[in-house]
Amino acid sequence: MIASTPHPPYYAVIFSNIRTAIDEGYAQTAQLMVELAETMPGYLGHESVRDGLGITISYWTDLEAIRNWKSQADHQIAQQLGKEKWYKAYKTRIARVERDYEFGL
Amino acid sequence: MIASTPHPPYYAVIFSNIRTAIDEGYAQTAQLMVELAETMPGYLGHESVRDGLGITISYWTDLEAIRNWKSQADHQIAQQLGKEKWYKAYKTRIARVERDYEFGL
Repeated sequence: MIASTPHPPYYAVIFSNIRTAIDEGYAQTAQLMVELAETMPGYLGHESVRDGLGITISYWTDLEAIRNWKSQADHQIAQQLGKEKWYKAYKTRIARVERDYEFGL
Repeated sequence: MIASTPHPPYYAVIFSNIRTAIDEGYAQTAQLMVELAETMPGYLGHESVRDGLGITISYWTDLEAIRNWKSQADHQIAQQLGKEKWYKAYKTRIARVERDYEFGL
């Protein structure tokens, strides 16, 4: 699903990642983190795809909302488990969406 | 592949899309556009994944590089064909990457 987001400016957290072979707890935690993010102030939506490379983008109203999400307690545990078990490598980019346009939506 | 990008700031073009059932010319044109983008001034890298939803993110030094790429002649033809044939819907977001961090890279 293409996320429905408000007029810019808003923020994107682009999480590009490569998984390990360890699946234990991954799917459940990923689903929990989506549900938890949706309850956070300033959350606007997300898009997620995996085909070898995984890209998950979450959209937020501002940097403070992103900071709050990054430091949320259960999310912190998930981030630690991610580094220990589920992710071989990742890159996270925090970006300010300045302009957008669409077709067919 | 996770794109290797320089220290921020730089720009991201996030292209989130849903395809039609029409494959004619799509794969060849997509490949050509990647090769063409790589020759453009200011191009830094790209990441692309599809699993139903498609997300392609290209990274650029600045907004002028993005404008040049958007208006490049062959790319303009591809964008037109995209709307006529290959894409049911898409959203393009132009974003300024302000911060990034990584693990395992």
